[in-house]
Amino acid sequence: MSNKHIRQVVIVGGTHGNERIGLYLVKKFNQDPSLLVRPNLSTTCLIGNPQACNENRRYIETDLNRCFIKADLENNLLGRHEEKQAKVLHQQLGPKGNSENFLLDLHSTTANMGMTLILVNGHPFNLHLAAYLTHHNPHVRIYRWTQGDQENAFVSSLCQLGFAIEVGPIPQGILLASLFKETETLIHQTLDYLEQINRDSSPLLPKTLTLFQHLEVVDFPKTPGGELTAMVHPQLQGRDYQPLNPGDPMFLTLDDQTLFYKGCSTVWPIFINEAAYYEKGVAMCLTQKQDIPLQRD
Amino acid sequence: MSNKHIRQVVIVGGTHGNERIGLYLVKKFNQDPSLLVRPNLSTTCLIGNPQACNENRRYIETDLNRCFIKADLENNLLGRHEEKQAKVLHQQLGPKGNSENFLLDLHSTTANMGMTLILVNGHPFNLHLAAYLTHHNPHVRIYRWTQGDQENAFVSSLCQLGFAIEVGPIPQGILLASLFKETETLIHQTLDYLEQINRDSSPLLPKTLTLFQHLEVVDFPKTPGGELTAMVHPQLQGRDYQPLNPGDPMFLTLDDQTLFYKGCSTVWPIFINEAAYYEKGVAMCLTQKQDIPLQRD
Repeated sequence: MSNKHIRQVVIVGGTHGNERIGLYLVKKFNQDPSLLVRPNLSTTCLIGNPQACNENRRYIETDLNRCFIKADLENNLLGRHEEKQAKVLHQQLGPKGNSENFLLDLHSTTANMGMTLILVNGHPFNLHLAAYLTHHNPHVRIYRWTQGDQENAFVSSLCQLGFAIEVGPIPQGILLASLFKETETLIHQTLDYLEQINRDSSPLLPKTLTLFQHLEVVDFPKTPGGELTAMVHPQLQGRDYQPLNPGDPMFLTLDDQTLFYKGCSTVWPIFINEAAYYEKGVAMCLTQKQDIPLQRD
Repeated sequence: MSNKHIRQVVIVGGTHGNERIGLYLVKKFNQDPSLLVRPNLSTTCLIGNPQACNENRRYIETDLNRCFIKADLENNLLGRHEEKQAKVLHQQLGPKGNSENFLLDLHSTTANMGMTLILVNGHPFNLHLAAYLTHHNPHVRIYRWTQGDQENAFVSSLCQLGFAIEVGPIPQGILLASLFKETETLIHQTLDYLEQINRDSSPLLPKTLTLFQHLEVVDFPKTPGGELTAMVHPQLQGRDYQPLNPGDPMFLTLDDQTLFYKGCSTVWPIFINEAAYYEKGVAMCLTQKQDIPLQRD
């Protein structure tokens, strides 16, 4: 077990201003902090991008959840709203890579992702916690969004320990009671685990962890001028985490032609048709399903 | 039958810039106008709010689909982006109340509204067409959003003939192939009907039309300061057009208390949890289900 003690848990909601579940969970917890109390654990909550939340927009000038590259955090020439807000969060929660905090960053998606933990590293502590949560909550899936040695730019990359929670499907700008409650439950299960660690008890864990390893992103078919020409195929829509095999329908053109997946091997697409990713040129992320053995101390 | 001939059909998409189905249907039709050709009917398409579409936002400064009050259209002091755009559309499609055009305005919603026609008047021509469409397409429902003598401010109020098509559920900012195709089918069924009218044939119609008459809007429970305190109850979420009886669950507070519907009689809620209506103080619209006999000429 990687049973280091956790000094401080920080829950961030409203990193994206139109993802309302995280925002309203933070408001709820800040109104009644007793909800999060555990005898051996200290937890605080904050709103990632208050101005974007006030305007019910993902961001004001640029995506806050892509602003946490070390060099950018140290670059005083970067002065857009979210670049400045990233520096504020870095001051509070960092320094990046050396923070002792455990960080939960709350997100939601229009894709049918259920309850997903997004890991941005392979730290054993995170893998053990992820295994605990999948074991106790069958709706939880693990997505590891690492790309070789490439530095991650998410809020959650500020701390080695912790992850983003991504829940869906939910449209931008609304609350869904079902997902609100499921997210709240997952937060409590996470705190329960951390409390056990701080008490030096050893939570029961499975021997292997199933995770979905990021492979690559896929854009929508477009004209040379960049105009979208196809939609996610109805047979793929909503089938996040299901296998996509070579030859399976992938897109449907606006004039009703089916385009098929042309890869060489089975992949597991996620973030299928996420609204905020259209502007990023991402129709979905392809992953590889992996069972990894958990190392014990 | 109210079998007056139709001179010109105008299809408007992108009245709201983040409702992508209408926008991309208009793009598709404008790229290949032959798709809409009928021998005795002329049809054109236009984008309602091009700048909002470019920015993938509902509107730039104010909701375009609330800008079509006659006095506002004639008021040159109103100079916000959408107030100006409303005057442009009024020039093209009006004058309000005296236009000979038949207008289809394409919208989408995060609510589970299926394929809804929104009527803003009780013109027999529209009622007959609505009856034809419900008869030929079992997914179609009719919502009449009239409020006594109050003037309607929607784009579709520019013309006596025509209506808005509201499809859902779909998050803002994305395309869904299934709803894209259903909307396209509904447009073709509408044009087929109008073509028959212009040929002086009499389409077969049922004797009665079931429609949902607007009663009132209901806001979310809020603190005196205006802070939202509850969500749509999970047992009501997605149940647009289903009866809501006195004593049925309506909202769930953020701290998990159920609030019940306190009306005196059964209502049929629609636009349940529509993202764009949070800022308008609308959690849902209550309607009365009515069967109305169709008058024959």
